[in-house]
Amino acid sequence: MNAELEQIGKKAAAAKYGAALLTTEQKNNALLKVADALVTHGDEIIAANAIDMENGKKAGMKEGILDRLLLTKERIDAIAEGLRQIVDLPDPIGTTLERFERPNGMKIEKVTVPMGVIGIIYESRPNVTPDAFGLCFTAGSAVILKGGSDCIHSNIAIVDCIADTLAECGLDRDLIQLIRSTDREVTREFMKMKEYVDLLIPRGGAGLIRATVENSTIPVIETGTGNCHIFVDETADIEKAIPIIFNAKTQRVGVCNACESLVVHENIREKLLPALQKELAKKQVELRADEASIGYLDGAVPATEEDFGTEYLDYILSIKTVSSVQEAIDHINRYHTGHSDCILTQNEENAELFKKCIDSACVYVNVSTRFTDGFEFGFGAEIGISTQKLHARGPMGLREICSYKYTIVGDGQVRG
Amino acid sequence: MNAELEQIGKKAAAAKYGAALLTTEQKNNALLKVADALVTHGDEIIAANAIDMENGKKAGMKEGILDRLLLTKERIDAIAEGLRQIVDLPDPIGTTLERFERPNGMKIEKVTVPMGVIGIIYESRPNVTPDAFGLCFTAGSAVILKGGSDCIHSNIAIVDCIADTLAECGLDRDLIQLIRSTDREVTREFMKMKEYVDLLIPRGGAGLIRATVENSTIPVIETGTGNCHIFVDETADIEKAIPIIFNAKTQRVGVCNACESLVVHENIREKLLPALQKELAKKQVELRADEASIGYLDGAVPATEEDFGTEYLDYILSIKTVSSVQEAIDHINRYHTGHSDCILTQNEENAELFKKCIDSACVYVNVSTRFTDGFEFGFGAEIGISTQKLHARGPMGLREICSYKYTIVGDGQVRG
Repeated sequence: MNAELEQIGKKAAAAKYGAALLTTEQKNNALLKVADALVTHGDEIIAANAIDMENGKKAGMKEGILDRLLLTKERIDAIAEGLRQIVDLPDPIGTTLERFERPNGMKIEKVTVPMGVIGIIYESRPNVTPDAFGLCFTAGSAVILKGGSDCIHSNIAIVDCIADTLAECGLDRDLIQLIRSTDREVTREFMKMKEYVDLLIPRGGAGLIRATVENSTIPVIETGTGNCHIFVDETADIEKAIPIIFNAKTQRVGVCNACESLVVHENIREKLLPALQKELAKKQVELRADEASIGYLDGAVPATEEDFGTEYLDYILSIKTVSSVQEAIDHINRYHTGHSDCILTQNEENAELFKKCIDSACVYVNVSTRFTDGFEFGFGAEIGISTQKLHARGPMGLREICSYKYTIVGDGQVRG
Repeated sequence: MNAELEQIGKKAAAAKYGAALLTTEQKNNALLKVADALVTHGDEIIAANAIDMENGKKAGMKEGILDRLLLTKERIDAIAEGLRQIVDLPDPIGTTLERFERPNGMKIEKVTVPMGVIGIIYESRPNVTPDAFGLCFTAGSAVILKGGSDCIHSNIAIVDCIADTLAECGLDRDLIQLIRSTDREVTREFMKMKEYVDLLIPRGGAGLIRATVENSTIPVIETGTGNCHIFVDETADIEKAIPIIFNAKTQRVGVCNACESLVVHENIREKLLPALQKELAKKQVELRADEASIGYLDGAVPATEEDFGTEYLDYILSIKTVSSVQEAIDHINRYHTGHSDCILTQNEENAELFKKCIDSACVYVNVSTRFTDGFEFGFGAEIGISTQKLHARGPMGLREICSYKYTIVGDGQVRG
């Protein structure tokens, strides 16, 4: 194993036992100190970020990516505020989930415990660095971060500031560690550090997530990709349907909970489509429609099979026509990514069937898919949206990055 | 992808949606019919098993392995009884775990749902075939089985009997499928069928589990390996300690919850060790002791570093001496497999520290480690013992092979 990784792994493994014993007060106190320190050291962090920005511009980075990379005084204030908000959330560690006694008198408790060491792999978004630390630390785990190499100077400045503050609080500075090597091979090796890392979360585009799933021997939680569908049933209330679709498609196009595909019942297409097109035109949304719907739209592009499986993250919407709720369910389960899907209907039976049969983390009835979000769900914080079925599904807050153990107390019981 | 796998994957993916809609009554009715059918077709299954036994003997299979492979009328009756017992357990699907309303009026429910398609890879134990089906079916999932190739005739007979019975009940026979190819390469390909399989559970020895973790792109739950430790603190009640250690070490040596290593406080070793040795001698247990304890034992072998990390699955016990509960905790967390560990003590503070700091699925105080078992915990059935921290930890019953989803019902809400 790469020497840097080996050392980081050992330090994290040593730090995690101490983290599990921290009191809520110790954690909250440290979080507030870290928030203050990030603001106090804002100038140094912004200076480090300026190097990354300069390099990014030289390398011809796109506008949108540069904007994600940029740190300003206001953005650092917002990051600090995010950390302060975590303090108000309940401590996820030490909760008794169940308590029962067996006939032989053994008392069994199921208690929430830290995951141990959490690894996060992400792209060039320096705000993820303190965010991920805040959540993992509060959940009693040590965190190992591997950020985008374009962001390395910003990340070093942020991580050093946090680690120094932890040390000032009398805590282990290795509770946050950053992989400083920018070699891609090191990232691959990181994914195989099963001996030291209990959970690996990739945060980023589909490519990063695929590479992590394919290479990792550490248990992974997949996050992110969302090919979200809205099905407009024949009984949908058009007055409500149009604003929901408009919101889900256009309120923010580059996010995983945006709507990418519309499934329309044939009995409502004539009433819906022209009015919807008029509304979506306000944001110049390109429509890619199947044969059965294209005639009701002005200037729409014919949709291919590939369109239905595409997460555009853009002002584009594919349209598929169906003749029943069952056909809509089958179509969606075939093409979606299991993130968020919605039915617009006034028929309760169809709503129930849709809720039961759609195999997604979040299934909506008459609501915009844009609500799939830890804050919108009231979790107070979020480390990502899980699209897998193991461990956590949908928005992941503090509870979702914890594990549990059983403790069994007896008085000499043996098995017969 | 291998043509057999591709076909199995597609059939399982098609069957899973129907499985999710089965009522408790439909599932229970089918389980009882399957139990009866296995007994009725017992002769055919035993005849198929005889071929595997014959081949096994010719191949020079060891006594213990042959015994695991053998099916008799009594064993089939016991298997059928196991399926009938599942009927008495609560249906794990459709339980509302949480229900809350957001300020904007959206009603959110968190509901248990089937995993979808579960893959099980196991060794030549034909009893696992109906067991695994019973649990996955009740949990609303389709199951794909890959059993040991030495067991292929038995497995085909069992799976055909179950699939035929499902069809007779009007259910999808593809809810249980067996990979019939005995090519090892096919097993590796199976581990990468992420498109079709939602969860993969390896059941077997350390080699099988390692191969699965290293090769699988499907989320895996690791089961099994247990290097379980018992720590005898200085205040332990010797009268209770000796029977607990004797039980944990010798009641059944080939199982994952058997004790493999004893950690002894130096202040109790003189009182404990000679008496313990006398007791363990009844079962000819070999003792491998560290320098600090070997002088208190008669004819013990010196323990090497490797001994502390070894799951013997045999009449062997390693012994390590420590001078504090903290040293015991550090030693155990270093060498164990995170399965089950125990402290024998009358000091409550030490018991609490041990419970909190030992990073295992099950942490015992004054009880034999042999109780880590779904039946002993009262779960009524068990698919394995998870030693990872993601999703499920410790004994996994019906609930632990399910997932959840969120349903969100509203009335036109959009995100601002």
